[in-house]
Amino acid sequence: MKLMLDGMGGDHAPASQIEGAALAGSILDDEIVITGDEKTLEAELKKYKKVPPNISIMHASEVVGMNEDPTSAYRQKKNSSLMVAVKMVATGKAAAVISAGNSGAIMTAALLDIKRIEGIARPAIAVLFPTLKGRAVILDVGANVDSKPINLLQFAEMGRVYVQEVLGVESPRIGLISIGEEDNKGNELTIEAFNLLKKYEKNFIGNIEGRDIPLGKADVIVCDGFLGNVLLKFGEGVAEMLFKLIKSSLKNHPVAWLSLPFLWTAIKDIRKRADYSEVGGAPLLGVKGSCFICHGRSDAKAIKNALIKASTYVKHNTTEKIEESIKGFGNGKY
Amino acid sequence: MKLMLDGMGGDHAPASQIEGAALAGSILDDEIVITGDEKTLEAELKKYKKVPPNISIMHASEVVGMNEDPTSAYRQKKNSSLMVAVKMVATGKAAAVISAGNSGAIMTAALLDIKRIEGIARPAIAVLFPTLKGRAVILDVGANVDSKPINLLQFAEMGRVYVQEVLGVESPRIGLISIGEEDNKGNELTIEAFNLLKKYEKNFIGNIEGRDIPLGKADVIVCDGFLGNVLLKFGEGVAEMLFKLIKSSLKNHPVAWLSLPFLWTAIKDIRKRADYSEVGGAPLLGVKGSCFICHGRSDAKAIKNALIKASTYVKHNTTEKIEESIKGFGNGKY
Repeated sequence: MKLMLDGMGGDHAPASQIEGAALAGSILDDEIVITGDEKTLEAELKKYKKVPPNISIMHASEVVGMNEDPTSAYRQKKNSSLMVAVKMVATGKAAAVISAGNSGAIMTAALLDIKRIEGIARPAIAVLFPTLKGRAVILDVGANVDSKPINLLQFAEMGRVYVQEVLGVESPRIGLISIGEEDNKGNELTIEAFNLLKKYEKNFIGNIEGRDIPLGKADVIVCDGFLGNVLLKFGEGVAEMLFKLIKSSLKNHPVAWLSLPFLWTAIKDIRKRADYSEVGGAPLLGVKGSCFICHGRSDAKAIKNALIKASTYVKHNTTEKIEESIKGFGNGKY
Repeated sequence: MKLMLDGMGGDHAPASQIEGAALAGSILDDEIVITGDEKTLEAELKKYKKVPPNISIMHASEVVGMNEDPTSAYRQKKNSSLMVAVKMVATGKAAAVISAGNSGAIMTAALLDIKRIEGIARPAIAVLFPTLKGRAVILDVGANVDSKPINLLQFAEMGRVYVQEVLGVESPRIGLISIGEEDNKGNELTIEAFNLLKKYEKNFIGNIEGRDIPLGKADVIVCDGFLGNVLLKFGEGVAEMLFKLIKSSLKNHPVAWLSLPFLWTAIKDIRKRADYSEVGGAPLLGVKGSCFICHGRSDAKAIKNALIKASTYVKHNTTEKIEESIKGFGNGKY
């Protein structure tokens, strides 16, 4: 299969993109095509003595800026590394697109070119979050704001398929984020979504509270994209704060200060579990093709992992399985 | 001044309530009146050799259960420890009510008996959250769901007065939780609230993202109660997960395992900063009286701290200052 990597999108592009591709290229038997300015990419590629034979470059003269308006970027930069990569998937010439570029522009291009799966009102970004019991998928984390109850139901179903296929969990427990475990607790959106989920998802475990997420109470965690996005970033911030506080607290206990090197090794283990570079990209579920959105600050390892994940995602026919599961789902009443 | 303590509300009532009152009684010169079953409370009080003279008991025959429906509790249990305590504040006979009981019932009673400050559409619960730079106040964390933009503007103004009076921050920086720092990022609610805040709050620093909260970017953090509640509980869960992971990671590093006792002392320091028992209760801002809602699992220390905080709150005339600041605020257009 052919994986399209946006070579110019991201804070560390193209260096991390080229290195990530080189790393993944020696592991995967897929073809990795890197889009972007030919000369720049070739110069970067020359730094590696042994470039795997499954890596190639596809010229794209423009670059979409990280803060550019997504809609104008889509209209005006058809020859950008991002749009060229998306187009290859949209026209069926490639299996997946992976980009650490402007995420709004990736979503716009995916929606308009690759298009939504029939019946899906809104695609969703699904990220892996570390829990005490392993990992959970939270969706949506930013593709949508002001979601409707039906959107949340579809997020749940797409998340279920993704967790079953890619994480190999047989019967994923689906939870809805709310402010109380009782059925009637929540806001207008979640109370209505609760009823839909109860009706159509047999593994729906009900409302879960914020505290239940890291404790691993559910495998698929459903929420509106505004909440999901704030939660994800808040979690990063809380972890950062705690690690800094631990460090400065230990300074006040001279003997404990000696233990810091050992503690650091432990914290590295934990960071690894929570690290976006380990997790790689997050799929945009609900479009008719495979589209992985990576963190803007992705390093080579993150790009490598995203390529591997995209390959697994495609090999498991995840998009087709979502398409299949959505047909007639919820009595087709949406 | 007279502080009313609900002696029967909370997971550890009345033992923690009595002990907390005894602890606070020896520090404060205020009168502490504990409501609840006279015999039970007196028996509990007898356990203490030296009961401060400023502590007294007010009989209340009923108890509101932790999971009881707030509205029926309000209608049917006028003689409960909770309702009797609230009534004392509502009738001007006491300065503040403090309860670790059914928080829905406390809010209902406060709204219906103590009543809202004129011009305040919806009161809000304000909690202190530890940050790298000290502390921030987040509101609302659960009094309201499906807030309107005008509610968020009023939360900001009430939070500003509270932080100025009780935390002594001269010009508190006000931030609005959203999914991007740019002015136009957010959902329907926050985009409209952004414009109101920009117009009426001179220390409004704009949108802040989830990560900025623990990093201490703002002193007053404004959001809808659904989001605030989920965030607060999620933060608890993330901290819990990280502490557990650190512990089990250290087990894999035998030398590091030896450092655990020292590390534990450090973690205790941090927990102390984040601990609800240190913070005590959270005020319900926007009612015509002082009402502190404590965590259901409050121990004696939490109750003690809530009583001290309520006393400071009243001494600073915080309620009156909110009343004053809201008059004509935002051109009185709400």
